[in-house]
Amino acid sequence: MAQQVRNKQVILRDYVSGFPKESDMNIVDSTITLKLPQGSNELLLKKLYLSCDPYMRILMTKDTTAGLGAHTPGSLLNVEKLQPLIGYGVSKVLESGHQDYTKGDLVWGITKWEEYSLVPATGMCKIEHTDVPLSYYTGILAMPGLTAYAGFFEVGTPKKGENVFVSAASGAFGQLVGQFAKLTGCYVVGSAGSKEKVDLLKNKFGYDEAINYKEEQDLDAALKRYFQEGIDIYFENVGGKTLDAVLPNMRVHGRIHVCGMISQYNLSQPEGVTNLAHIIYKRIRMQGFITPDYYHFYTKFLEFILPLIREGKIVYVEDIAEGLENGPAALVGLFSGRNVGKQVVFVAHE
Amino acid sequence: MAQQVRNKQVILRDYVSGFPKESDMNIVDSTITLKLPQGSNELLLKKLYLSCDPYMRILMTKDTTAGLGAHTPGSLLNVEKLQPLIGYGVSKVLESGHQDYTKGDLVWGITKWEEYSLVPATGMCKIEHTDVPLSYYTGILAMPGLTAYAGFFEVGTPKKGENVFVSAASGAFGQLVGQFAKLTGCYVVGSAGSKEKVDLLKNKFGYDEAINYKEEQDLDAALKRYFQEGIDIYFENVGGKTLDAVLPNMRVHGRIHVCGMISQYNLSQPEGVTNLAHIIYKRIRMQGFITPDYYHFYTKFLEFILPLIREGKIVYVEDIAEGLENGPAALVGLFSGRNVGKQVVFVAHE
Repeated sequence: MAQQVRNKQVILRDYVSGFPKESDMNIVDSTITLKLPQGSNELLLKKLYLSCDPYMRILMTKDTTAGLGAHTPGSLLNVEKLQPLIGYGVSKVLESGHQDYTKGDLVWGITKWEEYSLVPATGMCKIEHTDVPLSYYTGILAMPGLTAYAGFFEVGTPKKGENVFVSAASGAFGQLVGQFAKLTGCYVVGSAGSKEKVDLLKNKFGYDEAINYKEEQDLDAALKRYFQEGIDIYFENVGGKTLDAVLPNMRVHGRIHVCGMISQYNLSQPEGVTNLAHIIYKRIRMQGFITPDYYHFYTKFLEFILPLIREGKIVYVEDIAEGLENGPAALVGLFSGRNVGKQVVFVAHE
Repeated sequence: MAQQVRNKQVILRDYVSGFPKESDMNIVDSTITLKLPQGSNELLLKKLYLSCDPYMRILMTKDTTAGLGAHTPGSLLNVEKLQPLIGYGVSKVLESGHQDYTKGDLVWGITKWEEYSLVPATGMCKIEHTDVPLSYYTGILAMPGLTAYAGFFEVGTPKKGENVFVSAASGAFGQLVGQFAKLTGCYVVGSAGSKEKVDLLKNKFGYDEAINYKEEQDLDAALKRYFQEGIDIYFENVGGKTLDAVLPNMRVHGRIHVCGMISQYNLSQPEGVTNLAHIIYKRIRMQGFITPDYYHFYTKFLEFILPLIREGKIVYVEDIAEGLENGPAALVGLFSGRNVGKQVVFVAHE
């Protein structure tokens, strides 16, 4: 007879408005039968790591048209009320009904915030290289890494000597973009929200200069200090006031790679950006992008990044919360900048 | 002895803040010697038509860094206080010190708002085709035409069947973009600010649908009415609230071609645009452009547009003010939408 076990879950208590709170989520115990149904071609997964990413906030809203709704095929699914959260994670295959996977395989991909899940095999990506930390498959070797890579190299064409500015520069994406920019021979400045993060930018990730935006009265002046000739590439992670300060400091034919706008996701009325006419004056290109459009680059990306990790030429800082029950606090912490580096939730050992 | 004649000028009384008023400009009589100085390689021009264009407002501000200033090489010159306005126009060469020009040549290019000017030959473009109205060399056959052409065809890649929205759709640029979109096989909707203009859009320029934005309580709802599947290309002429309404109605991989933001040029504090996160969700590309970057397309553009004009397949509506002394009112009228079609000032017959 099949084994019934506890399946701890993080469920959405109610749709979120404003800043998410731990109390928007509940930890509940359900049960699951650790056996694939007869004839199933799905995978039975045990969760090892879950990824906390800012975009998840957008999917916790009831009004889907405000987020990824209308005219947005191919985008991620909203979380339903009283259902487990959905996000990227690393799992182990306990049972496989699909020919491409066997018991014991490690995979990463979109999954539910619970200890065990039954999922379609499509959408999972097999982990082939295990000489690096497994948690990296929530970050540098998964969605955030691919996003930083595609968003920096494929969305624009960065050139040696160009001036690059990165916001949320010590986060899951920013720490990589800064290192990619240095590898390209760019001058790169990052902004972050604490002394600890600013130190990381300069001493760990190789940023040329770093701005603690919480200590700057005037971000425009700070940008002018570090970019006397203007910014060629702005890697946008935050939006709002930061974008407004950046626009007048862009150079002619500058590019803004729009990865995220974390400062805006919790506002019922986003901050208005007033300096958009500089898009004309400077002939700026703003290009938004999301990772699913670049999944086909993943193999190329791994060939690029794995040697760099192994040779110590790229580093990655993670902030790992222990246990699924600490997931809500870890997720909520993203929006106050509590995390230092990529926020991960450790769920279980293999 | 050289002939001294009256040279009526429109001068900037003082730098403009807010909406420009006729009283910001003065009509003055100066004098000019209608003879090239000995050894000069310049051109002595008699003005025939002057062009009123929204960008001129930006150059009438003292604070150049707010406009086309910092990091903006290659842009247009600001107007100086107590000096004549500067803009595009059609002129006749009275005397030439330059080998490429002879007396009697017709030219278009940047010039001063005065009856006669001495100008460098560089920056003037010789008019070769005179079987079309000469005033067209302030509009369809000059900067606005080239801007509409390059901005529609070169900035993006419009495809048959795509959904196009154009703001300020009956203006110097918009009336052409709508016709270009129809020639490409697109579905195209325009917005304008009066019943007369909306009628022009549908009955003269071939727009599929037209929105009178002054009669719409809710521009978002109006856009949803005409774009049930979203907008592929937005040709942006106005900025502000219109852009904010358009963003959530864009389709995935939509493109916003940013030609101008006339609604914002007179505001000391531009309207904040709040819906920019859709740039990420929809992977939108926003690309600003200015005409000088596309001057090298001019010959190709003429080869495209002249046959269409001659065959009646493209029409162009002009609003011609009579006399340099009516120039200030014509220019100011752009910002209240008083003009119907391309605003031109007739200065003198050949």
